[in-house]
Amino acid sequence: MESLMNSAEEQQHSSPPGNSWSKQEEINKNETPKCVGGFVLVHAGAGYHSESKAKEYKHVCKRACQRAVDRLKAGALAAEAVAAALVELELYSAPASNACTHILLDDDSPFTNAGMGSNLNLSGEIECDASIMDGKSLHYGAVGAISGIKNPVLVANRLLSEAQKGKLSAGRIPPCFLVGRGAHDWAVGHGIPPCPSEKMATKFSLSAYKRNKRKMALAEKMDTGHNHAKKRRQSSETENGSGCLDTVGAVVVDSEGNVAAAVSSGGLAMKHPGRVGQAAHYGCGCWAENAFNNPYSTAVSTSGCGEHLIRTMLARECSAALQSEDAHKALLETMQNKFISSPFLAGEDRVLGGVIVLRCCRCVESPPSQNIQGILVEFLWSHTTESMCVGYMSAQDSKAKTHISRLPPGTVPGQCLAIEGGVCRLSVAE
Amino acid sequence: MESLMNSAEEQQHSSPPGNSWSKQEEINKNETPKCVGGFVLVHAGAGYHSESKAKEYKHVCKRACQRAVDRLKAGALAAEAVAAALVELELYSAPASNACTHILLDDDSPFTNAGMGSNLNLSGEIECDASIMDGKSLHYGAVGAISGIKNPVLVANRLLSEAQKGKLSAGRIPPCFLVGRGAHDWAVGHGIPPCPSEKMATKFSLSAYKRNKRKMALAEKMDTGHNHAKKRRQSSETENGSGCLDTVGAVVVDSEGNVAAAVSSGGLAMKHPGRVGQAAHYGCGCWAENAFNNPYSTAVSTSGCGEHLIRTMLARECSAALQSEDAHKALLETMQNKFISSPFLAGEDRVLGGVIVLRCCRCVESPPSQNIQGILVEFLWSHTTESMCVGYMSAQDSKAKTHISRLPPGTVPGQCLAIEGGVCRLSVAE
Repeated sequence: MESLMNSAEEQQHSSPPGNSWSKQEEINKNETPKCVGGFVLVHAGAGYHSESKAKEYKHVCKRACQRAVDRLKAGALAAEAVAAALVELELYSAPASNACTHILLDDDSPFTNAGMGSNLNLSGEIECDASIMDGKSLHYGAVGAISGIKNPVLVANRLLSEAQKGKLSAGRIPPCFLVGRGAHDWAVGHGIPPCPSEKMATKFSLSAYKRNKRKMALAEKMDTGHNHAKKRRQSSETENGSGCLDTVGAVVVDSEGNVAAAVSSGGLAMKHPGRVGQAAHYGCGCWAENAFNNPYSTAVSTSGCGEHLIRTMLARECSAALQSEDAHKALLETMQNKFISSPFLAGEDRVLGGVIVLRCCRCVESPPSQNIQGILVEFLWSHTTESMCVGYMSAQDSKAKTHISRLPPGTVPGQCLAIEGGVCRLSVAE
Repeated sequence: MESLMNSAEEQQHSSPPGNSWSKQEEINKNETPKCVGGFVLVHAGAGYHSESKAKEYKHVCKRACQRAVDRLKAGALAAEAVAAALVELELYSAPASNACTHILLDDDSPFTNAGMGSNLNLSGEIECDASIMDGKSLHYGAVGAISGIKNPVLVANRLLSEAQKGKLSAGRIPPCFLVGRGAHDWAVGHGIPPCPSEKMATKFSLSAYKRNKRKMALAEKMDTGHNHAKKRRQSSETENGSGCLDTVGAVVVDSEGNVAAAVSSGGLAMKHPGRVGQAAHYGCGCWAENAFNNPYSTAVSTSGCGEHLIRTMLARECSAALQSEDAHKALLETMQNKFISSPFLAGEDRVLGGVIVLRCCRCVESPPSQNIQGILVEFLWSHTTESMCVGYMSAQDSKAKTHISRLPPGTVPGQCLAIEGGVCRLSVAE
């Protein structure tokens, strides 16, 4: 059996992927060909990524892709590979000295907002959200507002794998979502090491906290008086467009065609303690669903303003839309109609978020006489934020491709979108 | 203008409601007739309701309906009325002496599992989940794993109303979901009184905790050894079918045709601390959506095994299905295909849950020449648990109707379902 897997081929906005291969074929399960490797697409957040730090953001994505591909090559299924990518993405929110030493990063400069080094909440603490979904088992694990754990995604992943084992003693149903202190204690009880609170914050996150505190005090001073409520509504224009929205996530398809998705976030800076964002909301932060009776397997991971992504349930909406014929058109319409113009966000002046998606199906390449079967992967990203940093890699690629997608100049964040993507063939000749 | 509102008319399983009135009519907003009152449907849980306590369960539902109708008559919108119903339902999980004195309840016998008197978790604490959704604004508020608050739904409702006011100082986005200690502190900071932990538990919930602890210890003793995992999977048959699943909820349509839904739960007995169930999961515990561009406004509240209701996102699935022509058929098919036979619960031997739903549309009664316009409300309940206790009432009724719905004798809980419902016309002559 010869491996004919091709590397990912980037496609531009104006030329939507898909439709260039024949439709999904019914393949007898006994004859399903084995593909080698798989494919991963990651994001380091939808928000704002400065040109000056573009190299570092891309490096984060590259490392995460490589980590997932390493696992795929070692035979890991999609869920394990996607968790590995997330651990790497969470790592880079830690100070450079903790993360890795082979790239020149500024000391104490986090590049993502997840796990250690995340945004601090109103009380000056770090509380993280993370979730993971396995398209094969359709199981899901999530943690919300968890403190003192370096890699929240590992707790979510452990919840997922524990749930797959079936019921607990006395017929108790294993939890799929744990929050706060209980989540922390469950993690430690399952062998995930705790991280002291003082080590979770970094110089960078602490100085951002102090800056934000001053900003809030100033804003509240201006907001006093009888027209407070009116001012509350009006105070929205200038905020939340910064780089604080850089949740991280990944979507993976493995060599068997299983999909998985994951997401992790430290949440909004200065959020109220106990606030849970989209990264821990079922259907909002990530979604993964093998094809079963549908034409396509789909995986989605989101980033941006948690409440916007929650109320529009964006991950699941994208997944459902991706069952239609043209993936690019489906995502474009979903971002436009179910996000920017969603009736659920009618009162919002700027709707901020981004998604990475992939869908795949078994296919027969033309001409059919060659009998080349495999998996066609279509992948896309779209965002309404100023920028979004993504990376992708197939198991046959020597290194990941990375890209900082930006809204076209002159367009308004939260009201316009960017969309790009590509295709990747995972194929084997019989 | 004469009020012609009719009281709720119960309809039986075999005769699905709907289709007896003409289709929704486009009514000029300036000419929209004002209806008096509204309609409420509540549930005191899908689980098991003993015959010996049927009277008390029904009484709980009656009181909750009355409370909502009182608010509707006073001109409250749906969200306020549904919260009032929930407060009453949560109250009855407290000891009789705390709850009310005008009905003979056994001392310290809670009848619902929500708020004070809820199931205790593994650590012997009460942690509650609750959420509320307003179909008019499409806003949502939820609390998860909250301790020391007598009426969690009031915190969820306050989150909803605060979010409707717009952004916080410095452009921060108000949270829609708070958990744990942070949720408790936010509630107290917003004027909701704390309730000391020792007052949250009741004699009943404490003795159930001790019983469950013994049961667990025994089960774990039996589960030791190398085939632990296998036993975990097999230990499911005899458990979780008890009355522990009695989450409470309500759906309301107000005099303007706005819908709202809410749900509240103490969660599974002996759950892990920090576990959040469906009652605090967006799209899973409750859903409410005014018609906007759809034919119907819909409201749904669920009860049962949290993880089953979460993974199938049952509330939102039901809401979406209710846009099709035949409400009874739509709910039946959803419960069968998207719940009992859902691929998301493929490994589960018994899928336990229940829903109450309502949908409504503006209508012109036949013959159209009479020009009688109003709101047609179709309401249904369905469950796979042994029983489900419901109550319903329109603002024109003198008292609520209540019913303990049971699976037909000989059918297997978790594999079969019961479905019943009725219709109610809220109409005004011009």
